[in-house]
Amino acid sequence: MPSQPKVGQLITSRNHPALRRIRALHARAERDQTGLFLIEGIRMLAQAVQHRARFDTLLVAPALLHHAFAKKLVRQIQRTGIPYHEVTPEVLHSVAQSDNPQGLAALVRQEWTPIAQADPQAGLCWLAVTQIQSCGNLGTLIRTCEAVGAAGVILLSNSPDPFDPAAVRASMGSLFALQYVRASVNEFIRWKERCHGVLVGTSPAADLDYQDARYAQPTTLFMGWEREGLSADEQSLCDLMVRIPMAGRCDSLNLAVASSVMLYELFNQRRRSPSLESGSL
Amino acid sequence: MPSQPKVGQLITSRNHPALRRIRALHARAERDQTGLFLIEGIRMLAQAVQHRARFDTLLVAPALLHHAFAKKLVRQIQRTGIPYHEVTPEVLHSVAQSDNPQGLAALVRQEWTPIAQADPQAGLCWLAVTQIQSCGNLGTLIRTCEAVGAAGVILLSNSPDPFDPAAVRASMGSLFALQYVRASVNEFIRWKERCHGVLVGTSPAADLDYQDARYAQPTTLFMGWEREGLSADEQSLCDLMVRIPMAGRCDSLNLAVASSVMLYELFNQRRRSPSLESGSL
Repeated sequence: MPSQPKVGQLITSRNHPALRRIRALHARAERDQTGLFLIEGIRMLAQAVQHRARFDTLLVAPALLHHAFAKKLVRQIQRTGIPYHEVTPEVLHSVAQSDNPQGLAALVRQEWTPIAQADPQAGLCWLAVTQIQSCGNLGTLIRTCEAVGAAGVILLSNSPDPFDPAAVRASMGSLFALQYVRASVNEFIRWKERCHGVLVGTSPAADLDYQDARYAQPTTLFMGWEREGLSADEQSLCDLMVRIPMAGRCDSLNLAVASSVMLYELFNQRRRSPSLESGSL
Repeated sequence: MPSQPKVGQLITSRNHPALRRIRALHARAERDQTGLFLIEGIRMLAQAVQHRARFDTLLVAPALLHHAFAKKLVRQIQRTGIPYHEVTPEVLHSVAQSDNPQGLAALVRQEWTPIAQADPQAGLCWLAVTQIQSCGNLGTLIRTCEAVGAAGVILLSNSPDPFDPAAVRASMGSLFALQYVRASVNEFIRWKERCHGVLVGTSPAADLDYQDARYAQPTTLFMGWEREGLSADEQSLCDLMVRIPMAGRCDSLNLAVASSVMLYELFNQRRRSPSLESGSL
């Protein structure tokens, strides 16, 4: 744990060890090893506090801290007793990924749920993803998952890191509302079979219209590669394949759009027919 | 119009006037002035041909042209008699915005529909946008518009350019399937009143659930700024304000996601109840 500077001891050098440690977290290997990630800005830190995220280090540029709410937030996080650094605006910008970190950033501990502890009845559904290329897409999916009350995201091999700065940014703070599970395909299949869940995939070639299926709990939505969707092998894991209809000659949807159309169908069915619910939403 | 080089006269310099002219189109001012834009790759050029886009110049790097389909596409475009340049891979990459332009790129003429000629009964609906910041978001919206059979996009003042390279890329070729209208707010209001259309906006504060409204033709969906949605003034222009429900403490959705959830609701209502249709889909 880095030493906690005395109050008033302003860090003015980008090369301070605490700053080098934070910048290293831009790389996935360092995030995986330390279990930490960086968040920035008022909204993100407020969401982290609200969801009782475990803070590791707080970074504040007092010269940029204009909002009263931000100052209150800083005091609230300081009271947890975590290391706290005051920095110049230049130093904050040297670690920030956004253009306007609004005077504050923090290191937060990643929370992962072991697949054995992933409750299939939790929330509206689970979202399992494989082969997704873009962290921004993953962050957008996470934001929609919170909006519909999904339990969390199961990340199969070759999935991006939900704690990547681009995913964190696109999630707009929703990442703290969900659970995250990392699993191999085999672990995932065993979990699904053990919980008697229904795994639903989408394909333009499927016969069943996505609105003609009934999605009872526990359901897991399975989404794949941005360019080609689920592979034949991945489709064969699904209990149900559905098609999102498209007009004209259109043959594909953006991944975040297709996922959101599906998630809202599950959400709409549940809120219209509470009988589909076997657990608690 | 640039001179057409003889076949076999390979352009090897990035500073060739034809290349400088193409690179200038990365700037919006140049696109607005010339009415041209750049497309790259097999899928995009194939979509342009399919939708009878007006080609201005074709650029081919024969060394990168591996697919038989791409070669056929090049011959098809060449037959229209437009200027045609052969370039080295390096020269193609110097104008391309994507990592892999697959050996071909083209300048294509922008098509704009004057608002007086925008048929309110065309397609499923129109999408009007204001204050959108991200060209990528606009491109994703365009892709969903094609998927649901929307007529086109009305771009109010301060909207990004649908022919921006990032919008073109995110649209995945869907941009050729739609009509584009540029209008001031006043022109837009007059058009809407003349065609007795219903303008629908969304807000988390609206009383009406988006699934409890009936969207008959002609409907125009109105979407605003990524961060705050429609302003109070913009909401006051709407005939109908609806709310997309969200679970928990969630207070907003990604713009492309919210728009797609709305567009799919319109599409689903139309395909389930053809009586909502007063024109032709």
